[in-house]
Amino acid sequence: MDETVELTVLENDKTISVASKLSGHQEELQDRDHEFLSLAIEDVYIGVNCGHGGPFGAVVVLNNEIVVQCHNMVLEYSDPTAHAEITAVREPCKQLGRIELSDCDMYVSCEPCPMCLDAIHLARFKRLVYGAQAEAAIAIGFDDFIADAIRRTAQYQKINLEIKRAYFDHATIACIEFLKKKNEKEREGIAAERERKREREREREREREGE
Amino acid sequence: MDETVELTVLENDKTISVASKLSGHQEELQDRDHEFLSLAIEDVYIGVNCGHGGPFGAVVVLNNEIVVQCHNMVLEYSDPTAHAEITAVREPCKQLGRIELSDCDMYVSCEPCPMCLDAIHLARFKRLVYGAQAEAAIAIGFDDFIADAIRRTAQYQKINLEIKRAYFDHATIACIEFLKKKNEKEREGIAAERERKREREREREREREGE
Repeated sequence: MDETVELTVLENDKTISVASKLSGHQEELQDRDHEFLSLAIEDVYIGVNCGHGGPFGAVVVLNNEIVVQCHNMVLEYSDPTAHAEITAVREPCKQLGRIELSDCDMYVSCEPCPMCLDAIHLARFKRLVYGAQAEAAIAIGFDDFIADAIRRTAQYQKINLEIKRAYFDHATIACIEFLKKKNEKEREGIAAERERKREREREREREREGE
Repeated sequence: MDETVELTVLENDKTISVASKLSGHQEELQDRDHEFLSLAIEDVYIGVNCGHGGPFGAVVVLNNEIVVQCHNMVLEYSDPTAHAEITAVREPCKQLGRIELSDCDMYVSCEPCPMCLDAIHLARFKRLVYGAQAEAAIAIGFDDFIADAIRRTAQYQKINLEIKRAYFDHATIACIEFLKKKNEKEREGIAAERERKREREREREREREGE
C-alpha cells in the first residue's frame, strides 16, 4: 500500500495525525503496528488458501518478538472456537507457561467477535490493534454480532437460544466451596510462612547460643 | 436437595410454575434438566478438588445422552480460554465431526461469561440451562463482566485494554478475497453439478438409442 495514501486516510479517519505531525516514538510505534498487522493479514491469505476457515489472522508480540502468528482453523479442526484470536491466546500461554499476557500485544486482521474480545481480556492483554472493521466480515456473510464486542453494544445480538435459569442451590454452594478451599489454602500458606519464620528465629537463637 | 423446597423457590422466582401446575412434558423436562445440571455441578466439585481451575462445570446432551461432562481447566492447562463451556463446545464437535450442535443442549453450573455465551452461540446451540447466577462467582472474586453475557449489557465492562484501529486496507481486501474464493467454489460446484446432469442425460440418450 502507498504509505502517503494510507496516512491521508488516517487523517480523514481522525484517529492518527499525518506522518509529519507524529513524534519519533509515535512513528516508530506506527511502523511496528504496520509490520505486525501485515503479518496477521499474511496469515489470512494462508488460512483462506488452505481452506482452514474464515479470513481472520492474528499475531502476538512480546518485546518486539513474535510469539505466535496464526489464522482461523474452524473448518480444519472442526472447532467453532478455533478463531485466530483464541489460538493467539492459547499458544503463548502454553509456550510461556502462564495464564496472563499483560506484557504482550495482540494484532488481528479484523475486529474481534465477543468471544475473542473476552478471551483477550481474560488473558489480560493491554493492547489490541486491529485492521478491518466488522462490516467487512458482515458483508461477506459472517455474524453481525461481531460488531458488538468493541463497540460494547448488544444491538446486533440476535442469539436464537432458549436460556433457562434452573434454580438449583447446589450450583451456588459449589461456588462457596471453592471460596472456602481457596481461603483454606491461603490460611495454610500464611501458617506455613509463620512456621518458617519461627524456625529461622530459633536457628538464629541457636547460632547466638553457640557463639 | 429437597424437591419441595426447590419448587417453592422456583415459584418465588417466577420462572417456572409449581409442580402441580406442570404438564407431564414440562415435568419430564424439569426432571431431565435437574439430572443433567446435577452432573455439571458434580464436575465443579471434581475440578475444584483437583485444583484444575475455577468452580464451573458443563454437560452437553444429545438425544438424552451425555456427549461431554467437563469442568474449568484454566490452571491445569495454563489456558485462560479453557472454561468448562469452551471444552463443552470443542469436544462434541470433535466427537461428532461437525461445527454446529443445534441438536444438543448445554447445561452449565453458572451463567456463562461473554466468551462462553458467544462460543455457545457460534456452535448454534438452541438450549442453555444454567444454575448459579453470575453474582455467586463475582462474590468470590471472578470478573463482574460475567453478568454481561446473558443480560446483554455492557455495564459491567471494565476492560483495561487499549484498542486501536490501524487503518489498513489489506485487511478488508483479505476479506473480499475470501468472498471471491467462496463464490468461485460455489460456481465450480454449480458447474460440476450441471456437467453431471448433462452426463446423466447423455447416458439416458445412449440407453434409449440402444433399446
